[in-house]
Amino acid sequence: MQLSFIESCFHAFKDQSALVHNLTNDVAHNTVANVLLACRASPAMVHDIQEAPDFVCLSDALAINIGTLTQTRLNSMLATAKMAHSKGIPWVLDPVAVGATAFRQQACRQLLSLQPDVIRGNASEILALAGMSSQSRGIDSGDSVAAAHAAAEALTQYAKVVVVTGEIDWVTDGMNRWAINHGHPMMTQVTAIGCALTALIAGFVGANKKAMAQAAVTALCYYGQAAEHAMQIAQGPGSFYIHFLDSLYALQATDVSQQARVTLYE
Amino acid sequence: MQLSFIESCFHAFKDQSALVHNLTNDVAHNTVANVLLACRASPAMVHDIQEAPDFVCLSDALAINIGTLTQTRLNSMLATAKMAHSKGIPWVLDPVAVGATAFRQQACRQLLSLQPDVIRGNASEILALAGMSSQSRGIDSGDSVAAAHAAAEALTQYAKVVVVTGEIDWVTDGMNRWAINHGHPMMTQVTAIGCALTALIAGFVGANKKAMAQAAVTALCYYGQAAEHAMQIAQGPGSFYIHFLDSLYALQATDVSQQARVTLYE
Amino acid sequence: MQLSFIESCFHAFKDQSALVHNLTNDVAHNTVANVLLACRASPAMVHDIQEAPDFVCLSDALAINIGTLTQTRLNSMLATAKMAHSKGIPWVLDPVAVGATAFRQQACRQLLSLQPDVIRGNASEILALAGMSSQSRGIDSGDSVAAAHAAAEALTQYAKVVVVTGEIDWVTDGMNRWAINHGHPMMTQVTAIGCALTALIAGFVGANKKAMAQAAVTALCYYGQAAEHAMQIAQGPGSFYIHFLDSLYALQATDVSQQARVTLYE
Repeated sequence: MQLSFIESCFHAFKDQSALVHNLTNDVAHNTVANVLLACRASPAMVHDIQEAPDFVCLSDALAINIGTLTQTRLNSMLATAKMAHSKGIPWVLDPVAVGATAFRQQACRQLLSLQPDVIRGNASEILALAGMSSQSRGIDSGDSVAAAHAAAEALTQYAKVVVVTGEIDWVTDGMNRWAINHGHPMMTQVTAIGCALTALIAGFVGANKKAMAQAAVTALCYYGQAAEHAMQIAQGPGSFYIHFLDSLYALQATDVSQQARVTLYE
Repeated sequence: MQLSFIESCFHAFKDQSALVHNLTNDVAHNTVANVLLACRASPAMVHDIQEAPDFVCLSDALAINIGTLTQTRLNSMLATAKMAHSKGIPWVLDPVAVGATAFRQQACRQLLSLQPDVIRGNASEILALAGMSSQSRGIDSGDSVAAAHAAAEALTQYAKVVVVTGEIDWVTDGMNRWAINHGHPMMTQVTAIGCALTALIAGFVGANKKAMAQAAVTALCYYGQAAEHAMQIAQGPGSFYIHFLDSLYALQATDVSQQARVTLYE
Repeated sequence: MQLSFIESCFHAFKDQSALVHNLTNDVAHNTVANVLLACRASPAMVHDIQEAPDFVCLSDALAINIGTLTQTRLNSMLATAKMAHSKGIPWVLDPVAVGATAFRQQACRQLLSLQPDVIRGNASEILALAGMSSQSRGIDSGDSVAAAHAAAEALTQYAKVVVVTGEIDWVTDGMNRWAINHGHPMMTQVTAIGCALTALIAGFVGANKKAMAQAAVTALCYYGQAAEHAMQIAQGPGSFYIHFLDSLYALQATDVSQQARVTLYE
């Protein structure tokens, strides 16, 4: 299969040192910032409504994550996403635990109306976001990725690209679908690894505006391979996280491209 | 002494993969989540008053920590603790630096009226919460655990179980008292290790509702032994935290039970 | 050159176990607390306006960082800085990304009027704070430290000491200037390392009120040398951070003093 896009998307991301603006949750701030820095992107977390819409105009991409949502933060998210969309700055939605409460469902409905470029969630979140029933309790997925393929497809009416992460990641833009077979279950034993992936996808998409689905696929290959490298020496979730950051820092375009395990379904 | 409860409390906790709902402080979010995940529990940090009382109904236990308190957060804590109590979902109070300001004292008085199942603090916090004079400045304890035994006893009028942590941890339910001799002073050189213990105790208590004191004792044995293992290879507080997470992930019921250094005072 | 002050400033800091009160940003909380603890200082992050001005009176120093500013937090900063100044408790200002938005510029103007003892920023922030043009986008510096020497000098009308960090750190009190040649570029690949330095400088200044510039120079030597030690074994930004905390914990006064690379310009 033709995977030459991986090297070019990877180089475009690294060359840009993308400034990624994050409106994320209280648990994830530190991890998101450290993952972006390890990947040589530049994180910002400005969130007050007085300045977030201005700040996003300086950024290459925006990542919105509803983890510890409040009404104040939601107002800021809506104003900032609206601005990003109007300026052609790509933005990515991470609908954390959308199925858990009515507040989250309503918030996501408002955010979807502002046309995210990418949606990234686990299977239960993608199912709940598409209005289908899911097995989740709290924030972890209780569904398989395969069970969310149809939901991902349905969500392409709201977003250019939909990403479902799990045992085998899935990317669809409504035309093509990619299955990415990388990563390790230990990624779910460290908090905010998914939130940080959303931010990284934002950075990749911001640097590859004309190939957003391919950019997301590349980010998933990079991220999953870094996890595999880290697991070769990790003793548990503490050391995994440390080696994961080191691996994200070390991995090169040719490594990521040559090791990629991606299947394209046209 | 009969310590057979350790293995059964430990298994009950691991089998449940407890969902622990946390209303905690800004410093502790990431650490609390990572400690719970390393122990195979599931953390959630939903805190807006619009959804926190609903969310706690999905959870196995609630941990409330007043570290970086605000009036908004306090309102959410009161509504969520009230809901938890009405549904029989155990909740644990961590009265961080309660002696430092009038705002904290008042907040704790309101929270105590909602009948926490467990209170967990350092010696100075337990003394201040019981209205006795303490030697603390800021958030660290200036008192010995032994100096807080009577205060712990007095607080059993508000909570089923009171835990004082320090050089030798102390647990009382007003009938029996346990002294747990595990851990290492390095635990005080890493932020939020105490806050994360509170969350872990919540998880253990949620999985062992009929033996809450024994569940807390088991959590303390597990936590303290993980710290001892970590110190065998740590070079300082940075590597200690990493190895501590790895040890929490690795420790098994038989290890924790066979190594337990617990003294029961009837 | 006479650098005997390094040992005495270092000992004064360690002997005090300084309680450092932080009004910092959402990303930095955990890192600031862990850096202070690794250095044997005591961190506190109390920020509600109901208690922060009271709490600072118990503290040895205050660090204010505008990273993820909100109006509510700014109000608390202003009240707390005012109280600190009135009580003779030193306070340090970290003007994160001050050049990025009008909200930040206005906030800094208000904070400067409360007479910080020390200002600590990267070159772009110091330039922007002095009203000179800078090359920054977002939170990273786009200017050299040397380009900000004049701006630092200009800011001594607002603060007793101004610190510019970067490839060669610069400290001025308007009378003397010190260039500190320590550290490693990896420090910029981990989030909040600069924010934590601001808090550490606060601790050093709080313990050395009569030699604030020398205290800041000592903190920079200590911090930069810890980074150099960490880089001898680090594999990337993840392991760097861990070894950095371990090195901060291990370094002794004689090490820091004997290895110091400081140039004084009178």
